[in-house]
Amino acid sequence: MPDLPIWSALPGIAYGGDYNPEQWPRETWREDVRLMREAGVDLVSVGIFSWALIERREGEFDFSWLDEVIGLLHENGIRVDLGTPTASPPAWFFAAHPEARVITRDGTVMGFGSRGMASHSSPAYRAAIVRIATALAERYGDHPAVVLWHVHNEYGVPVGEDYSPASVAAFRAWLAERYGSLDALNAAWGTAFWGQHYEEWEHIGAPAAAPSVVNPAQRLDFLRFTDHQLRQCYIAERDAIRAHAAQPITTNFMANQSWTTDLWAWGREVDVVADDHYLWAPDEEAHIGLSIAADLSRSVGGGAPWILMEHSTSAVNWQPRNIAKRPGEMARNSLAHVARGADAVLFFQWRAGRAGAEKFHSAMLPHAGTDSRVWREVVALGADLDRLDGVTGSRVEAEVAVLWDFESFWAQDLEWRPTDDLSHQERVRAYYETLWRDGITVDFALPGHDLSRYKLVVAPAQYLLTAADAANLARYVESGGTLVVSYFSAVVDENDAVHAGGFLSPLRDALGVDVEEHLPLRAGRTALVEWTGGETITVDHWQEAIRLHGAEVVGAYAEGPGAGGPAVTRHRHGAGTGWYVSTRPDAEGLRRIMADVYADAGIAPAGIPEGVEVVRRRADDGRVFAFAVNHRDDDVEIDVVGRELLAGAATSASHVVPAGGVAVIELAREGAH
Amino acid sequence: MPDLPIWSALPGIAYGGDYNPEQWPRETWREDVRLMREAGVDLVSVGIFSWALIERREGEFDFSWLDEVIGLLHENGIRVDLGTPTASPPAWFFAAHPEARVITRDGTVMGFGSRGMASHSSPAYRAAIVRIATALAERYGDHPAVVLWHVHNEYGVPVGEDYSPASVAAFRAWLAERYGSLDALNAAWGTAFWGQHYEEWEHIGAPAAAPSVVNPAQRLDFLRFTDHQLRQCYIAERDAIRAHAAQPITTNFMANQSWTTDLWAWGREVDVVADDHYLWAPDEEAHIGLSIAADLSRSVGGGAPWILMEHSTSAVNWQPRNIAKRPGEMARNSLAHVARGADAVLFFQWRAGRAGAEKFHSAMLPHAGTDSRVWREVVALGADLDRLDGVTGSRVEAEVAVLWDFESFWAQDLEWRPTDDLSHQERVRAYYETLWRDGITVDFALPGHDLSRYKLVVAPAQYLLTAADAANLARYVESGGTLVVSYFSAVVDENDAVHAGGFLSPLRDALGVDVEEHLPLRAGRTALVEWTGGETITVDHWQEAIRLHGAEVVGAYAEGPGAGGPAVTRHRHGAGTGWYVSTRPDAEGLRRIMADVYADAGIAPAGIPEGVEVVRRRADDGRVFAFAVNHRDDDVEIDVVGRELLAGAATSASHVVPAGGVAVIELAREGAH
Amino acid sequence: MPDLPIWSALPGIAYGGDYNPEQWPRETWREDVRLMREAGVDLVSVGIFSWALIERREGEFDFSWLDEVIGLLHENGIRVDLGTPTASPPAWFFAAHPEARVITRDGTVMGFGSRGMASHSSPAYRAAIVRIATALAERYGDHPAVVLWHVHNEYGVPVGEDYSPASVAAFRAWLAERYGSLDALNAAWGTAFWGQHYEEWEHIGAPAAAPSVVNPAQRLDFLRFTDHQLRQCYIAERDAIRAHAAQPITTNFMANQSWTTDLWAWGREVDVVADDHYLWAPDEEAHIGLSIAADLSRSVGGGAPWILMEHSTSAVNWQPRNIAKRPGEMARNSLAHVARGADAVLFFQWRAGRAGAEKFHSAMLPHAGTDSRVWREVVALGADLDRLDGVTGSRVEAEVAVLWDFESFWAQDLEWRPTDDLSHQERVRAYYETLWRDGITVDFALPGHDLSRYKLVVAPAQYLLTAADAANLARYVESGGTLVVSYFSAVVDENDAVHAGGFLSPLRDALGVDVEEHLPLRAGRTALVEWTGGETITVDHWQEAIRLHGAEVVGAYAEGPGAGGPAVTRHRHGAGTGWYVSTRPDAEGLRRIMADVYADAGIAPAGIPEGVEVVRRRADDGRVFAFAVNHRDDDVEIDVVGRELLAGAATSASHVVPAGGVAVIELAREGAH
Repeated sequence: MPDLPIWSALPGIAYGGDYNPEQWPRETWREDVRLMREAGVDLVSVGIFSWALIERREGEFDFSWLDEVIGLLHENGIRVDLGTPTASPPAWFFAAHPEARVITRDGTVMGFGSRGMASHSSPAYRAAIVRIATALAERYGDHPAVVLWHVHNEYGVPVGEDYSPASVAAFRAWLAERYGSLDALNAAWGTAFWGQHYEEWEHIGAPAAAPSVVNPAQRLDFLRFTDHQLRQCYIAERDAIRAHAAQPITTNFMANQSWTTDLWAWGREVDVVADDHYLWAPDEEAHIGLSIAADLSRSVGGGAPWILMEHSTSAVNWQPRNIAKRPGEMARNSLAHVARGADAVLFFQWRAGRAGAEKFHSAMLPHAGTDSRVWREVVALGADLDRLDGVTGSRVEAEVAVLWDFESFWAQDLEWRPTDDLSHQERVRAYYETLWRDGITVDFALPGHDLSRYKLVVAPAQYLLTAADAANLARYVESGGTLVVSYFSAVVDENDAVHAGGFLSPLRDALGVDVEEHLPLRAGRTALVEWTGGETITVDHWQEAIRLHGAEVVGAYAEGPGAGGPAVTRHRHGAGTGWYVSTRPDAEGLRRIMADVYADAGIAPAGIPEGVEVVRRRADDGRVFAFAVNHRDDDVEIDVVGRELLAGAATSASHVVPAGGVAVIELAREGAH
Repeated sequence: MPDLPIWSALPGIAYGGDYNPEQWPRETWREDVRLMREAGVDLVSVGIFSWALIERREGEFDFSWLDEVIGLLHENGIRVDLGTPTASPPAWFFAAHPEARVITRDGTVMGFGSRGMASHSSPAYRAAIVRIATALAERYGDHPAVVLWHVHNEYGVPVGEDYSPASVAAFRAWLAERYGSLDALNAAWGTAFWGQHYEEWEHIGAPAAAPSVVNPAQRLDFLRFTDHQLRQCYIAERDAIRAHAAQPITTNFMANQSWTTDLWAWGREVDVVADDHYLWAPDEEAHIGLSIAADLSRSVGGGAPWILMEHSTSAVNWQPRNIAKRPGEMARNSLAHVARGADAVLFFQWRAGRAGAEKFHSAMLPHAGTDSRVWREVVALGADLDRLDGVTGSRVEAEVAVLWDFESFWAQDLEWRPTDDLSHQERVRAYYETLWRDGITVDFALPGHDLSRYKLVVAPAQYLLTAADAANLARYVESGGTLVVSYFSAVVDENDAVHAGGFLSPLRDALGVDVEEHLPLRAGRTALVEWTGGETITVDHWQEAIRLHGAEVVGAYAEGPGAGGPAVTRHRHGAGTGWYVSTRPDAEGLRRIMADVYADAGIAPAGIPEGVEVVRRRADDGRVFAFAVNHRDDDVEIDVVGRELLAGAATSASHVVPAGGVAVIELAREGAH
Repeated sequence: MPDLPIWSALPGIAYGGDYNPEQWPRETWREDVRLMREAGVDLVSVGIFSWALIERREGEFDFSWLDEVIGLLHENGIRVDLGTPTASPPAWFFAAHPEARVITRDGTVMGFGSRGMASHSSPAYRAAIVRIATALAERYGDHPAVVLWHVHNEYGVPVGEDYSPASVAAFRAWLAERYGSLDALNAAWGTAFWGQHYEEWEHIGAPAAAPSVVNPAQRLDFLRFTDHQLRQCYIAERDAIRAHAAQPITTNFMANQSWTTDLWAWGREVDVVADDHYLWAPDEEAHIGLSIAADLSRSVGGGAPWILMEHSTSAVNWQPRNIAKRPGEMARNSLAHVARGADAVLFFQWRAGRAGAEKFHSAMLPHAGTDSRVWREVVALGADLDRLDGVTGSRVEAEVAVLWDFESFWAQDLEWRPTDDLSHQERVRAYYETLWRDGITVDFALPGHDLSRYKLVVAPAQYLLTAADAANLARYVESGGTLVVSYFSAVVDENDAVHAGGFLSPLRDALGVDVEEHLPLRAGRTALVEWTGGETITVDHWQEAIRLHGAEVVGAYAEGPGAGGPAVTRHRHGAGTGWYVSTRPDAEGLRRIMADVYADAGIAPAGIPEGVEVVRRRADDGRVFAFAVNHRDDDVEIDVVGRELLAGAATSASHVVPAGGVAVIELAREGAH
């Protein structure tokens, strides 16, 4: 990531949102900038869906309205994050290039009238996006208002996999590049199974609708290919912009809410990570999902500050029940993102749109206008963020890493797994949530990363684990690390083929166990695990027949198909310890297990009331900021010596965080707590 | 509606059903007419699915069997409702015109072998239906047995929306006619959102499968267009018949059971309203749904007597569980329709068919033959209807109107609304049911209708409300009317765009409130509303943040996201009163609210036992007939002075309506009760 | 079935599984045969999915690896069941013949990459399968290791119905052959209904997607046609093999787990019946389903010994939750199949595959290798089977027949039946299960079979019953048999047309009742039936209005829509008795009813503990083998005089069958118990 002047161009924590002036008459624009200033808005994203209004016919550009909008913003001191509108090609594009339309797995052709890009592999689409990106960069590459380029929108949503002829042809080329020979491909895909052997490259297709389950290695490669092609679209635009413009370039991710893109690879291609996050209303603790998304955004950017590119002031419009945020919730969410590394807080969207599919999505300026709770809270949040200028640039620190591997998740989600109860998302959330409740901040990591700086590494769902990555984890343990591995891990290699030595065999030495057989439970069944010392833990969904290779049994199945066998094991390996948890404990049980793991790792729960999160950011100059976010219905007192910034109070040794509120304490230099 | 001799051609209340002699050998026809006479049948619908047997090859007609059937009926004094068979084009039609096949939203081509018309926009289909309708009219236009023309069958079921090229082309032409210019269309559809701007008419398509939600204004227009095209098909046939025949012409609606057609518009095109109605078995009070259908059929015909064209003697065959009617239920249903304005009672179908998809549909003559409960009840009902000759031509009177607006229902049912719990059908039923249980007869109306003759107007689900219609409702209140508006009303204009002043703003003056924010509840949650005086009402699904503009708060949220704010308000406006109910009360709560509303409107519940409906029809000569339908398991006594017609009793001051039975009382002239 | 030397080529009960050496390197092959010998494997199925590796390009054959594999097996004394690989055509086939791809009912084209045959009606596919079958037969027709030909794999799964143009053309030809004239077809299909009359053969299509329900007679014929075409594919291969090879030929059925093929017809075309069976995990008594499958396999083969071609050592991989077998369960399952007539026990598969869609399917040699429970049990089972050599060739005897009619099942499963609660599978299981719990062994039969050797015939779901078959059943009763008929039987004829005399009319004389009306219950409702004498039976789902024609009422409805009418009737007809059960009793109620039925039939429950099955096989020389399979958690004692073969004990008068275990007792010649 080049050191581009994204942050220096912005004063303090940036504040604003998506701005779509093309939906409104010019008289509204004047009101908009006046209200933006009232709210403290200093950065807006413009032009994200404006292709049809900029390039009204193929190659005919009209920048007049955009010139005017950007000029107006500039006059008012509001910076511009300029979008390339390639997530929504115009009607003329699809009319001229019907072959560029996306085709679904079952052959349905995706038409115009909604939103969504064309085929990621269409030559016509590739040419068109480079043309519009180039035209925009040429015109605005040195505009003083433009501080950031926002390429496309949420790659992978709503268009990811494409089964059009263009995509199939590109897939073959990608496979030829990856495998070099058909022999290698046949071996990697295991085509001897079910008679799928290929003698010609031209016979290979996309994994489209078929009478039964399609080759899983082919499907996994198609997911890799899809991610690759989407990223190539981004790179093509990025490079076209860079040829004419010096500002940083990014695109908005959907960490934890979209699974089409491998954000680790994307993190390497953007100048700064930007993320969109929306609370998932059926989750009554959706703020934990928010923390996951924020930690992941920070992690894929290598720990650098990142941009919260979109979130909502209140309800969204696309969930089964779109729950409005309650008073204070918007600020609590926003500051929780800042706590976990965001240095910019933006919303979709500035002004609620009257028409179209998202008219019921909340905005900074709602349909109800300024005489509204939402507007008053938007103005207040702008003022609060101004008080946190000093936080910018500081970095979150964590002692624990949780493994998050898109390739493994893709592979695990394919068909015909041992039980429908398997869910990588659920396992990641369960381990993350245990750490969150214990007040322990985590980074996310890949199994191949250098993990040496972490006291504890948790692998909640590492179904796919290459031999090389397994060796990396084993070295981590050997060197003194503590590793916890959950069930159904290290099952397959990079081709979704079972490891030759059996399930878990690549981690046999590090964990001192391997797995003889999977023992999923029937729907709704629970069972007890007996802990050394006699406590019991309730588990469900899954058990395994474990073979011991040196590990000690710390929990044994008292019930279920595995009754009598090991359930949880612990193994000294080199200077470190490897834990294996072969079942799904309930929340209390997992917390019990992790308490013993923490002891091995030499870490301790934070000792704060449940429902309060405390995260620290450390600046280069040594200043430390503790963010305390109180999700409880009552006030809590936090013992931290320092000065609370939002209220601007004097230094004290403890701070009351009001019910539903946030405190940001700059720690006294002696350190605190 | 011209004054055509439909009723004068029929003696008393017409009785009969669909008759499909082509499914049976000639010897059965003789038995049919003999049994029809036994049952008192005097009208049958013939030829509805007979295209392939009349026009065996394109342009080659064979009327011989139909001549014979109609002749036989005529000889036996049975009148004919002659169908045009265009709901089921022959195999040769689809073979010769494959381009006329209907295509679904996801591109599936609808084939032959079932039933269902071709594309409503196919030139070949349009030509073919005019040809067959003309041929039938030429042949039977002056046949003395034919007293009515039955065009097509249940327009909109099973074929409504069509995404074939013919339909797309017609849609563009319809849009050009509606909007005049692309600028107007772009504005109406809000195409600035998501980059959907159009520069060429040819780029506009049907709202087919797309990567995400399609433009809602486009979808709403496609629904309007579909309704329009179906109606044009009807008009083409009707006009072709009229050129050669003087009998009245109609088509059978499915009021309350199909949503593709705007029956208000259709009501203007038929000479007499005809409706098909089937009980929905999962509804344990399906007779309330029957009342809705009957009231709607009457209302779309301007209050004139109408024809119950189809209902069932017992079970149907297309529901998840097809519940047979219990003894007496068929008569109770039939007479409930008559009570609400039907002057003809017909069934699908005369004789149960042995083959095909509907072989398990009940009939007047069941598979079990004449030694059966159903047949005995059919004969008895025929005799009962003969006793009601005097009722024909009388009209139902109502003091209350409930708004029923297909366009608003279409718009509300589009995607991405605030919560999946929203349902216009459910709200209409809830308000209707409250009135039904209170014994209050209602008409249905559009918000733009002249409502001045009603003491109370109820708007249960008026999501889409144009400014003009809002002004009409405001004038109604101003002039002394009482208006009750339920939540999620007056949200959008005719283009599904949020009203510029915010939710409910067009009714702000009439109701004295507007809506700051929608506050849907999580699944399964309930909350309490505190009524002035301290009573509580339980609500669920929905709350709103209300801003008061003069209204008084009569119920306030005690719980839920709206806690502390207004829930139900009342506003004096001019000479009238506007009520707003911003939540979903349970049945008891709604009844409590409506009790106060009735007081404002100067109406009173009928004071009859719950489960009994009493509806009055008034003849031009002043005679009044009270229909008392007893859905209870016990006998009830009704205090009405008059003469019961079915039993033929003498005049008395009260009448026992037996459990599950019906009484029809011609009121003594002094009036009664 | 010709008397081919299948059994004489095998010593005792054959043991083995599917062997896919092409998935492994050559060094693994040596290990395989060594371990096969260790386990007692003497028969393996080879080449089932190997087309692409044998015919690498159209017409270019490479048998080298197969020669080597078969040679290696031969050297080690292991016999070969040689597959034709036509269930999985190579990539080149679909590339060269895209028109041969299967098309689903809604028009989706089925692609390559999974498994599944091409269109059963594609000329290119027919030519290709004959070519490969011929080539294999020419090469291996006289190989001494090859003792059996295994054509294709599981016909009908995953490809059955095909809506491609080739299939439609073949359907027309099949119809022309079946009906001779369009008049006959129009009459059979009842095309006068809904205007479906045909004037040209070319206008007839497959029953593809249509606006509403497609003609049920057309759908039923399409199911018959599909079965016929699949069978013609089998016959084409079989005859091609027979031209060059003398070994017996079969294909593997999926009795009770696939419904596409009419196994009665297929049973006539194979030299020996082979069946694949997998426990259905959600069924906690899946061993009863196993018994059904085994009895059906035996019955469609005329009672001859059959081959269990596939089952699993532990979990499968395609169910929602793939439950691993518990210790002893594999042996218990295997011996239960032998008890019911299997003389060969084979598994899918020998060695667990590392790659592909079935990598989580268990195998004789699991991923965990030989140090595993599964392997140890596989070796033990091999030894056990060796002890049962004397059982081979003996035949199961049964006094009761349960009707199992694929055509009736197909017809009943079509759309728009009286209630979604109807399920033929559920009814067959309920009656079978009652007999199973009572220890009574059954054969399955068609209603047209000679049933005279059975004391009792049960018709649990004979919705479709031709007049001829009804007459056969009536003759059976007249001659002294006892017949039990469940509800919704004898409703339609072979064209899915209601019998002209009404429901059940073809059995009116035999049963002394017919059915006036179906009375399905609402969801979740139960009702009581009062038995003569005052007991009550709880029923749900269904009642009927019964008309008595001589039968006595033994149970009457006390509740529900049929209240007051007959529920269960009994009728003396000739020398026999006909029972009719017009409702769905709970398990206890059905057992109560059957107790009275047994008395009429002169049979008695076996008097063994519930959860233990005892089945007898009788050899030509008079020896009788009693198999006692104990599904209970405790040991049980069985009073049978004889010698237990597995333990090799001396003759005794009773035998303890351990919990979860099996005893096989050769009865002492005086007979026992």
